[in-house]
Amino acid sequence: MLKKYLKRLLLGSALGLGGLLVLSQPAFAEETVSLEMFTINNTWMLVSAFLVFIMHLGFATLEAGLTRSKNTVNILFKNVMILSIGLLTYALVGFNLMYPGEGSWILGQWFGFAGFGIGTDAAGLTSAYNPGYTYWTDFIFQGMFAATCATIVSGAVAERIKLHSFLVFSTIYVALIYPWLGSWKWGGGWLDGLGFYDFAGSTLVHSVGGWAALACIIILGPRFGKYSQGQSRAIPGHSMPLATIGVFLLWLGWFGFNGGSVLSADPGLVSYVFVTTALAAAAGVVGSMFASEFMLKKPDLSMVLNGSLAGLVGITAGADVVSIPSAIIIGLVAGALVVASVIFIDSKLKIDDPVGATSVHLVCGIWGTLAVGIFSPDHSFLTQLLGVVAYGAVSFVSAFVIFSIVKAVMGVRVTEREEIRGLDIDEHGMEAYAGFQIFSTEG
Amino acid sequence: MLKKYLKRLLLGSALGLGGLLVLSQPAFAEETVSLEMFTINNTWMLVSAFLVFIMHLGFATLEAGLTRSKNTVNILFKNVMILSIGLLTYALVGFNLMYPGEGSWILGQWFGFAGFGIGTDAAGLTSAYNPGYTYWTDFIFQGMFAATCATIVSGAVAERIKLHSFLVFSTIYVALIYPWLGSWKWGGGWLDGLGFYDFAGSTLVHSVGGWAALACIIILGPRFGKYSQGQSRAIPGHSMPLATIGVFLLWLGWFGFNGGSVLSADPGLVSYVFVTTALAAAAGVVGSMFASEFMLKKPDLSMVLNGSLAGLVGITAGADVVSIPSAIIIGLVAGALVVASVIFIDSKLKIDDPVGATSVHLVCGIWGTLAVGIFSPDHSFLTQLLGVVAYGAVSFVSAFVIFSIVKAVMGVRVTEREEIRGLDIDEHGMEAYAGFQIFSTEG
Amino acid sequence: MLKKYLKRLLLGSALGLGGLLVLSQPAFAEETVSLEMFTINNTWMLVSAFLVFIMHLGFATLEAGLTRSKNTVNILFKNVMILSIGLLTYALVGFNLMYPGEGSWILGQWFGFAGFGIGTDAAGLTSAYNPGYTYWTDFIFQGMFAATCATIVSGAVAERIKLHSFLVFSTIYVALIYPWLGSWKWGGGWLDGLGFYDFAGSTLVHSVGGWAALACIIILGPRFGKYSQGQSRAIPGHSMPLATIGVFLLWLGWFGFNGGSVLSADPGLVSYVFVTTALAAAAGVVGSMFASEFMLKKPDLSMVLNGSLAGLVGITAGADVVSIPSAIIIGLVAGALVVASVIFIDSKLKIDDPVGATSVHLVCGIWGTLAVGIFSPDHSFLTQLLGVVAYGAVSFVSAFVIFSIVKAVMGVRVTEREEIRGLDIDEHGMEAYAGFQIFSTEG
Repeated sequence: MLKKYLKRLLLGSALGLGGLLVLSQPAFAEETVSLEMFTINNTWMLVSAFLVFIMHLGFATLEAGLTRSKNTVNILFKNVMILSIGLLTYALVGFNLMYPGEGSWILGQWFGFAGFGIGTDAAGLTSAYNPGYTYWTDFIFQGMFAATCATIVSGAVAERIKLHSFLVFSTIYVALIYPWLGSWKWGGGWLDGLGFYDFAGSTLVHSVGGWAALACIIILGPRFGKYSQGQSRAIPGHSMPLATIGVFLLWLGWFGFNGGSVLSADPGLVSYVFVTTALAAAAGVVGSMFASEFMLKKPDLSMVLNGSLAGLVGITAGADVVSIPSAIIIGLVAGALVVASVIFIDSKLKIDDPVGATSVHLVCGIWGTLAVGIFSPDHSFLTQLLGVVAYGAVSFVSAFVIFSIVKAVMGVRVTEREEIRGLDIDEHGMEAYAGFQIFSTEG
Repeated sequence: MLKKYLKRLLLGSALGLGGLLVLSQPAFAEETVSLEMFTINNTWMLVSAFLVFIMHLGFATLEAGLTRSKNTVNILFKNVMILSIGLLTYALVGFNLMYPGEGSWILGQWFGFAGFGIGTDAAGLTSAYNPGYTYWTDFIFQGMFAATCATIVSGAVAERIKLHSFLVFSTIYVALIYPWLGSWKWGGGWLDGLGFYDFAGSTLVHSVGGWAALACIIILGPRFGKYSQGQSRAIPGHSMPLATIGVFLLWLGWFGFNGGSVLSADPGLVSYVFVTTALAAAAGVVGSMFASEFMLKKPDLSMVLNGSLAGLVGITAGADVVSIPSAIIIGLVAGALVVASVIFIDSKLKIDDPVGATSVHLVCGIWGTLAVGIFSPDHSFLTQLLGVVAYGAVSFVSAFVIFSIVKAVMGVRVTEREEIRGLDIDEHGMEAYAGFQIFSTEG
Repeated sequence: MLKKYLKRLLLGSALGLGGLLVLSQPAFAEETVSLEMFTINNTWMLVSAFLVFIMHLGFATLEAGLTRSKNTVNILFKNVMILSIGLLTYALVGFNLMYPGEGSWILGQWFGFAGFGIGTDAAGLTSAYNPGYTYWTDFIFQGMFAATCATIVSGAVAERIKLHSFLVFSTIYVALIYPWLGSWKWGGGWLDGLGFYDFAGSTLVHSVGGWAALACIIILGPRFGKYSQGQSRAIPGHSMPLATIGVFLLWLGWFGFNGGSVLSADPGLVSYVFVTTALAAAAGVVGSMFASEFMLKKPDLSMVLNGSLAGLVGITAGADVVSIPSAIIIGLVAGALVVASVIFIDSKLKIDDPVGATSVHLVCGIWGTLAVGIFSPDHSFLTQLLGVVAYGAVSFVSAFVIFSIVKAVMGVRVTEREEIRGLDIDEHGMEAYAGFQIFSTEG
């Protein structure tokens, strides 16, 4: 039996060679970590990967809960697909676009690509970015991230987008745009060189997703009946328990999203990031509660749910570099901001975003990125602003162009009849609650 | 890229200084652990922290599932708020009340406070309590615990309490009473000195929460229509799937609640605690099934769900010090006990506890604490009883006094009209299932 | 306080002696791992154990979602019970049947038993199978697995089986048949000696459960109204959100199911297994989407959900020994296969399997096991086929005989009246959504 264990260890070492060999390469010789430390780091990164995985269930339930039951199958379907497409395309091209490695850059660190497919022999040996874990761990952690970006769009375009048009757009965006833009900072591209800071993706993930969401819903237009005679009509979601489950799962996943972005199990940093993340989320809840009582005159559950996400998005850029009081302030502001933003976008701009994705991910993503320049003494506000603008311009324009092409080629919006009946029947031929019976009702 | 890694490692070390410095202090000199072991311990404690976090989603869904849909938004709102308030107040005062440290005790270890706020320079350097993880890990693990205590109250007072009154009461209880009482044992206070044992909180968390729940529901009175002409009327919950999700998530979280209470990743202890925890929960299920078939003449799902929680609460005090057969017996007894207790409190005492929180957390918390005195040869039954009585008296009286003041100042109960219409409409202006449609029904 | 830590460490060592002593035994002397590595391995295995635990919630919600609301309480009840019974019987007999250890085999490695109960002094010291973790960790990880096998049956027999008959059958199957068959390979029995390979249980868990499901539903017959005049009638599930939650949780749990089957935290192997597992699941989704569009002319959500499970079951046998492209192919084929199989079993064979358990677990379990022989150069297709046939014959016959005896003794099927009214009312005296009210509906 022991032989089996040793054989596995050996095989494991061979498979993990990408990571382990790095340790013995000249460049790293003086800072080798022990096999034990390598194993702990790697284990924590895998735990973080499965936590980020959970966020996809969080998005699926949150979006389903905040929309109507006649479109629930459609939303669930999109979320299952996007995760899967995201992982597969990240293996095919995304990973090597995002982490091209030293030799593969062109256009002065604006673009790089290390070739198709993944494998430890590939040119894109990203373990070179740090000695903390294997190539495979790197891929799976980053792959789980990639899919979250496209999922942000899914909620905003809900209840009126054609299924196949959404899938085509998302595939292109997650396969090409997200990783290309990610390379600018995390891949070691031009913005990294300028000192722009985004710890875990307030901008690289959330704003990049949020800008795409904004571009798409501008093109799509509002849901049928949403605005009439200059008035916005509230269209409540069909299940607050589902939405609440979603938010708790997203918060949970964020411990891996931010905690894993330390890129090692470093005890001080990971635990500090846990604390700033949790306190910012809690402060986001409290901030949005007060804002909701003040602006809406009631303690609105959906606002408070979005408030916790706002706090989380807000702290994501600087979770490792701001103080505890700053983390709480960032969360409080994000929580208030998201309430104001949801009201403003809905009532003033008259842009229809069923789940508030642009307010949560785009607005608070910008806030969090700028907050690094405000609260961290080591980072420049102007550089942060430059990053926000650069990412905003390119991601919005890219999404707008791609979605416009999709619109021209195959159309993006279901018919009015389909929209009224619900996408579940016409796009999927099934209902979310077909066998649902309530026998007795109880006062 | 490597430089970044090293910089992070350095920054991490600086941030984690609280924990790491401890290792080099004279007092600990002879028992330093390696950086690798420190990192493993710390990682496991963070995993435990996120597992305890999941319990809050478990409570939210369990309580929502066992009550009526007209109060669901209210319950979800309370659970999101309590977690957030619990974390923030624990950072502000709770942590330093619970772990005041050697120099901050007054009144002969009955009370201690190390000052406001958290930070590694604060007087309340609780990493001194063990060399296994950083200050921040200590805070976040204990902070997740703190909020669970207040959540126990939430379910018992459901469907009739005023939102703001609940929030005021809970804030005071979780910010001041829970950590103060916790300091008696886990902070090194007077009961710790006497040899009282409570591994992970059968008393310190569950009974302290359960006594508060009891005090509150005595003051609140039963729900409208619950008792008429001396008869108790069953008011079934609106979603057994939600309740079941809640119980599974609580069970899951308990692996961190108990497993993390080892305060290190010690392989023998943590794995042993996993086994006693899982078997006691399983035995609780089986015990409650038989009790349900015997007492209610049917296999009642809600009883079986409470049975698993009963087993978990029961094993919590002694998960590390009782044998495997004892763990199973503790679970079986707890499972039967909870069924009898739910029936007794509901039908005989006529105290209305919608989710059975007092039976699960208070009654089985007492049972579990006393069980340590029965099944562990190293602990005294009388000391355990003393702990149960001391905690019971002070937590019940504290909760009773605070909730009475809240009642006098702002009232605690919604109007009858509001209660009948449901709290969601009147307190929150929204419904849990507003857009819920069932198109076809299926025989 | 430090004393407490050291005492715990000591106590921990004592309790974990089973595992730790092994390291100092002569046979292992030359390959001792450091205490740090032992602790990491052990921690990862415990994380894997709680991930596999989550799968039980996944099964519960998936099965509940895919069936009608009148049988939901029954399904939830069965899943809570099976997990509990599985853990308790595994402690009583299962563990020592599955891992009998060198001295306890009879009948030429066809059967072994190391005695009743668990404990480090027991003859069945399974830590001898590898030096990576403690005895207790071994037990809890394997115990969580055991219960999944019986749960597979639960979905297939849903909506018509008598509760107590199911519980009796499952108890026998999980207590005796699953561990006995498991010993053939993982316990070091005759098939292990022949070179049969099943990394994490495509056959040992999923097919063994799937064959039992098939035997039971053949005996039970279809649900009332399922087939009339030679036509199969679709009976849609009552909650696609519940089903989707189930699938995501199962996928999540699979990272522990497969990742933990490495039996250590080996960085290369565990991370590689994460990647093959995730990509096969993603490919299963894509494969089933195309198959669904092709065969059913619509993007069917339940097919896509089963597609991800199909990919996961398919990769389970060879997750550590196939290449990345092979993993994707295995997933794609499994995804297409499950759609074809569901249609074939339902429409052609007219065997009623409400959740598609036989297609997912049995058909794709066979596919995954054979795929090892196809895609891994180190394994023989014929040996894999031999394993499939041997396991298939014995598990199907065992299940058929046991369930037939249960049928003869106590009956297995509820009355037609009960089936039409739903099992919740008649077997449990309660409803899944009793207090469920929808106040306003929203177009």
